Amino acid sequence: MNEFTLSCPAPILSEERILLAHGGGGRLMHQLLERVFLPAFRDPALEARHDGAALEIQGVRLAFTTDSYVVRPLFFPGGNIGDLAINGTVNDLAMCGARPLYLSAGFILEEGLAMETLRRVTDSMRAAAERAGVRLVTGDTKVVDQGHGDGIYINTAGIGVIEAPGEIGPQRVEPGDAVLVSGDLGAHGVAILSVREGLEFEAPIASDTAPLWEPVAALLAAGIEVHCLRDLTRGGLASALNEIAQARGLLISLEEAAIPVSEPVKGACEILGLDPLYVANEGRFVAFVPQSQAERALEALRSVPVSAGAVQVGSVLEEKTAAVVLRSRVGGRRVVDMLSGEQLPRIC
Amino acid sequence: MNEFTLSCPAPILSEERILLAHGGGGRLMHQLLERVFLPAFRDPALEARHDGAALEIQGVRLAFTTDSYVVRPLFFPGGNIGDLAINGTVNDLAMCGARPLYLSAGFILEEGLAMETLRRVTDSMRAAAERAGVRLVTGDTKVVDQGHGDGIYINTAGIGVIEAPGEIGPQRVEPGDAVLVSGDLGAHGVAILSVREGLEFEAPIASDTAPLWEPVAALLAAGIEVHCLRDLTRGGLASALNEIAQARGLLISLEEAAIPVSEPVKGACEILGLDPLYVANEGRFVAFVPQSQAERALEALRSVPVSAGAVQVGSVLEEKTAAVVLRSRVGGRRVVDMLSGEQLPRIC
Repeated sequence: MNEFTLSCPAPILSEERILLAHGGGGRLMHQLLERVFLPAFRDPALEARHDGAALEIQGVRLAFTTDSYVVRPLFFPGGNIGDLAINGTVNDLAMCGARPLYLSAGFILEEGLAMETLRRVTDSMRAAAERAGVRLVTGDTKVVDQGHGDGIYINTAGIGVIEAPGEIGPQRVEPGDAVLVSGDLGAHGVAILSVREGLEFEAPIASDTAPLWEPVAALLAAGIEVHCLRDLTRGGLASALNEIAQARGLLISLEEAAIPVSEPVKGACEILGLDPLYVANEGRFVAFVPQSQAERALEALRSVPVSAGAVQVGSVLEEKTAAVVLRSRVGGRRVVDMLSGEQLPRIC
Repeated sequence: MNEFTLSCPAPILSEERILLAHGGGGRLMHQLLERVFLPAFRDPALEARHDGAALEIQGVRLAFTTDSYVVRPLFFPGGNIGDLAINGTVNDLAMCGARPLYLSAGFILEEGLAMETLRRVTDSMRAAAERAGVRLVTGDTKVVDQGHGDGIYINTAGIGVIEAPGEIGPQRVEPGDAVLVSGDLGAHGVAILSVREGLEFEAPIASDTAPLWEPVAALLAAGIEVHCLRDLTRGGLASALNEIAQARGLLISLEEAAIPVSEPVKGACEILGLDPLYVANEGRFVAFVPQSQAERALEALRSVPVSAGAVQVGSVLEEKTAAVVLRSRVGGRRVVDMLSGEQLPRIC
């Protein structure tokens, strides 16, 4: 029956069944978006491929976004699913240049969940909402049978008022733009994975989960012409830059030496076999601004604690090749591709 | 070790672990709301206990709401989880007197789900969104490991513009109000349960899932002073009325003979041991309006196909007893309480 076939160990790109990698932020997730969701829901707001939709209702410019959170474990160094669910959606609004105002919360609880666990999570949500200055105004709870959930899944949706004077999104990125990151990369993913794998490091690594409207507001207050913002969650810096490079058909060049990764995260990534460029962050973002304003933008970012470690890591080049390249410390160049498979499932 | 104790079979009100009934729309769900969510998120919009939050942003009156959908099976006579997820959130906006405009969709997919199943669901969502006149503008997809989901869970959140001139909510309900329902009750719950139980009835019973903004708009266009609206989902008419009676400390009286239940649904409920007053609907709502406007309100409702079967089923009485009573066909009165346990888990 079976023919003999040679197969290489590349990730399966089959469309027949959902794989964990369809949720990983890489190539398969983009295929799912392009082949299922975009054709079904064909809408200009969706096709803008940004972190949220920019809407205008009776002259008021609003951003609207949603994310579900299925992180495992529920609790990890530096946070839990609750503050992640607040910060993640707050940050998607911030990436639209919008001041986050109102959040919804939809809980899918698994039968048998300890009430105390739920309380700890909702307490964290309240604290995170207060810190981010948002109100949680509407919610819903569903319960699924034991074995058909994983303790708690949370969806949050958010509404914010767009304060950025110009549009913010991949379509605004231009050759000559500076590529800034707001701080050191990889802490969230490493914090999660270290718990899952039962690893202990000399210095414990805590998730970077944090709200990011304040640094965005600082950029806007400084009058920076912000072209694009993207928080570096699933798939990390590499995936975010690939999405933007492909959306605009532009080449983004990174300087390896400039990319900030803390020593503990670097060490942990080596042990775990991870590339920090692909590891998820929950309190870091990339900003595209005109090179002439890069220094002022970095100053504005560094004035806020959460983005005190902001640096320029690269530039957008003239070439019409949709790709991300990394110039290594020794001068070589390599393409930084989008991941096909799944590096870290259920990271957020 | 065990002491001998007499125990009655009443549902456990324990707070220690989440039970299926915590998601059922009855007493346990209200306890969860009161003991966990409201204290954690203390916010006036949440405390209004309506189907969505009424917000004002730069002078624009918006409604914002969310619901997660975990119905099993995913497909049932008359609909599937996809159109349910659109209609349910559209209807929560409509119940705020708001014209539904924009929806978000968050998918939690289970590893191994057939892509074809997802396509059928997204196709239904598009069709339902078109029918309801809403745009799906932002979304998110997560994938969970096989065994930690149930094919597809969907969260939708929605934004609408409030067109009702006055506030709509339980706080507006007054003694003397007429209680109207928009059509016959129980079809959704019976449709779901008949599939689960593998029952076949002479006449197949299809879910009533439908968008409800049109009948609400008809009430507003007719100048009806709408006091409160509530769609009759989890827990059915009995639970919705109990919530409102308790929120306002008022007595609601129902006429059993006036409550519309189709013969097939009545028969199925008898076989299945269900009380149609508690069975979920996904295209039916209750409206509280001044008795003097009841006839005009019914005319307006009957002018729209989805609410062609609208009737008055009761009134709000002067007595300061927070309860719902049913006057039976033979003249007796009985209290229609909120369910403690779970009649139909995972109905939406």
